[in-house]
Amino acid sequence: MSLSKFHKLAIIVAIPIIIALFSPPTGLHPVAWYLFGIYLATIVGLILKPYGEPVILLTAVAISGAIIGNVEGATALVKVGNTLDGYKSSTTWLIFTAFTLSSAFVITGLGKRIAYHMIRAMGHTTLRLGYVTMFLDLLLSPATPSNTARSGGIIFPIINSVAVALGSDPETSPKKAGRYLMMNVYMVVKTTSYIFLTAMAPNALALSLMAPILGFELNWINWFIAASVPGLLCLILIPLVCYFVSPPEMKKVNNEEIARKGLEQLGPISFKEKALAILFIIALFGWIFSGALHINATIVSLIIMVACIILNIVSWDDILKGKAGWNTLIWYGGIIGMSGVLDKAGFFKWLADVLGNVLSFEGHANIALIVLLLVSVSVRYLFASGGAYVAAMVPVFATVGKVVGAPAELLTIGLLFSNAYGGSVTHYGGGPGPIAFGAGYNDIKSWWTAGAIVAFGSLLIHCTIGLSWWNFLINLNII
Amino acid sequence: MSLSKFHKLAIIVAIPIIIALFSPPTGLHPVAWYLFGIYLATIVGLILKPYGEPVILLTAVAISGAIIGNVEGATALVKVGNTLDGYKSSTTWLIFTAFTLSSAFVITGLGKRIAYHMIRAMGHTTLRLGYVTMFLDLLLSPATPSNTARSGGIIFPIINSVAVALGSDPETSPKKAGRYLMMNVYMVVKTTSYIFLTAMAPNALALSLMAPILGFELNWINWFIAASVPGLLCLILIPLVCYFVSPPEMKKVNNEEIARKGLEQLGPISFKEKALAILFIIALFGWIFSGALHINATIVSLIIMVACIILNIVSWDDILKGKAGWNTLIWYGGIIGMSGVLDKAGFFKWLADVLGNVLSFEGHANIALIVLLLVSVSVRYLFASGGAYVAAMVPVFATVGKVVGAPAELLTIGLLFSNAYGGSVTHYGGGPGPIAFGAGYNDIKSWWTAGAIVAFGSLLIHCTIGLSWWNFLINLNII
Repeated sequence: MSLSKFHKLAIIVAIPIIIALFSPPTGLHPVAWYLFGIYLATIVGLILKPYGEPVILLTAVAISGAIIGNVEGATALVKVGNTLDGYKSSTTWLIFTAFTLSSAFVITGLGKRIAYHMIRAMGHTTLRLGYVTMFLDLLLSPATPSNTARSGGIIFPIINSVAVALGSDPETSPKKAGRYLMMNVYMVVKTTSYIFLTAMAPNALALSLMAPILGFELNWINWFIAASVPGLLCLILIPLVCYFVSPPEMKKVNNEEIARKGLEQLGPISFKEKALAILFIIALFGWIFSGALHINATIVSLIIMVACIILNIVSWDDILKGKAGWNTLIWYGGIIGMSGVLDKAGFFKWLADVLGNVLSFEGHANIALIVLLLVSVSVRYLFASGGAYVAAMVPVFATVGKVVGAPAELLTIGLLFSNAYGGSVTHYGGGPGPIAFGAGYNDIKSWWTAGAIVAFGSLLIHCTIGLSWWNFLINLNII
Repeated sequence: MSLSKFHKLAIIVAIPIIIALFSPPTGLHPVAWYLFGIYLATIVGLILKPYGEPVILLTAVAISGAIIGNVEGATALVKVGNTLDGYKSSTTWLIFTAFTLSSAFVITGLGKRIAYHMIRAMGHTTLRLGYVTMFLDLLLSPATPSNTARSGGIIFPIINSVAVALGSDPETSPKKAGRYLMMNVYMVVKTTSYIFLTAMAPNALALSLMAPILGFELNWINWFIAASVPGLLCLILIPLVCYFVSPPEMKKVNNEEIARKGLEQLGPISFKEKALAILFIIALFGWIFSGALHINATIVSLIIMVACIILNIVSWDDILKGKAGWNTLIWYGGIIGMSGVLDKAGFFKWLADVLGNVLSFEGHANIALIVLLLVSVSVRYLFASGGAYVAAMVPVFATVGKVVGAPAELLTIGLLFSNAYGGSVTHYGGGPGPIAFGAGYNDIKSWWTAGAIVAFGSLLIHCTIGLSWWNFLINLNII
């Protein structure tokens, strides 16, 4: 958007004012109507970004608090303090605490070390380097909810330096290897991001926004089980798709040499790396068996965060300096609180009633489900950030789905995953995109082509194999 | 403390383990007993400080979460998620958001500008400079809950440079002016800190820890009304007390010259300073009339924080870099959550029952009140941080006071204030202490002498004039 900051602000401020000038629709309490205006302005704010997400959310929370206290009868529905509820949300804290693990992989160099070992073991063709990228990303993904840190901070620098080492230059010889490798880095992360609840920050956000509307929860291990079959299938195909769209001119790779140099630079493995590897395994163990251990995923993540500090893998100062974590704490806590007060004020119930009178898919619930997933992937490319998309669209899709009778479990799962792969199309559809694209190897046309194939191919796989798999799991009471 | 980190950790870890080895006392649920062990270890951790406060609190929250999930029958009393409740507490958020105003005064230079104007207007003797310090601190205090930022970041640098300009050198001529001025800086801030709810971070913390036990709340304006008479009286006396204990050899001051140079260095007043001054007035207005405006103090503070960012007085990046704010968010949220789960698990009720069988002040409730205040001031000097003292002692004093029948309102008010002036004695009794003492002008003997006079003199004033004033306010239903 090339609007000036002033114009952006004017638009954002105008939204709730214009909405407030209309009287609330019948059946909706005035406070819900005003809060809806704030929420809409917030989402437009997240898209136009006159300020960063945390500032926009804090503004929204502040104004909502002032409104709730001043609308007659509002406090019977919702309290001023509810605006801050998102800051005690286990979702917010899961993401915030797991950011420590993301940065630990970057800070200690363990991520790079694993990458070079993988390159040595299996990277002797360009195509296989694509698979190295995929396995590496998948391996790290359960403990790196900052997919920007995972892809942009660990995988991108390595694969970029590999491309350079192969003699592929962004200006003169992008097609030699770099174009393929970079495109693949992005397409892969958009798929690993939905395999685990903790593989991308907006996952937990989407789940916590949908759960009150659709009444369906997924814990860490069930999330993985649901994602495994369609997700791993897509993952296996992605390096091939990229290879087909952007075939690298160079086929053979001197992987031994690249790995040797890289590992030499890293030096011998440190205590911190070993300790991190062990904590990573404990975290996985804790998330997988969180039910049996009576410890929820957030507490597991918090324990691992604290252990990282006590074992000196990262310092508290490192955490203070990790701006991404604090930004996420503030903005996720804010948006979860905002959506919570909107819900308490009766907005989503009212919206469902209204939509129920308009929409009708009587007897075609499954068609409605597929239409919703198709729409979700189609509109996803309008959003530069998965978080903004989730805040804006997920509650709407969930409400519509509920109204038209789409099966709650299938809709929840389908939407949770489409948020990630739906972002594949564009080179700006998430944090890692601009980084990989910014290396300069890629052209928009081949990127968007591959992205469209990945996004709509994934949709196809999810709507066929995915739906069958989820139905199977639901029928067996596994999830 | 000169214990090694390892020894500190060993002590802290041993506490909850030893407690858990004993079976819970009759009438106390096992989960409350284990949580008490964690709470005690937390407080010892806050005192020994093997890590910063946030790390200690996050560890406590993590372990508490794991314990609550794993003690049979615990979840009937308290939920795992309750450990995070402190992060939605309006107390935590009031302090966190008001930190922005503290740093805005430092960043924009407005604090310094006001100081130089005051020096010009009334600082033509050393004694009057002591009063300049006092008025300046009092003026800034309502909007600077970081009293370290207020005293250490604004007042200390100015008064220190004034001492240097007066030719008072820490090595050769400390008694010329510096010794008096520095001592006065500290004694003053320990008193302004209890005049306003928002004048020191632990104020709101102490209030939120006592309220569930004693059932008495104080809003922003009532806090000020209660503190005004004894507090302002103490404030007026403090520069005289310091003057008496450490008489400066230099009496006359060329204040015009100092102010001229200082203001010259600052240059003309900027837009940011003007905007901050207006926001400061709006904040005061909001806090004073928060009842009539239906906006609680936290929302006022959040609105001002957001306005500071939008008007570019401070940037979000400044806030991200302000480590003190984030540290406070994490550790206050943590300790409020910890105290909350202890309360929910029935610990304070049980403690009150046990103490009720032991203690007896039958018919002497007012004596009990005065004894408690005396004890509170006496033990305060053991604690380097007001926050640690509050977390450790305030719930205990409140419980004891309740048991022995001390009047809840008077006890609450008395303890809220003694937390601040009780820290006057030592040069380490709060953030600003080491800064002012560290300038090198002072000796421990005269500092502690003045500190003891201020602490116990304040106690005397509070137990006489203070109690009468509070009784008067309560009888008239003003607070």
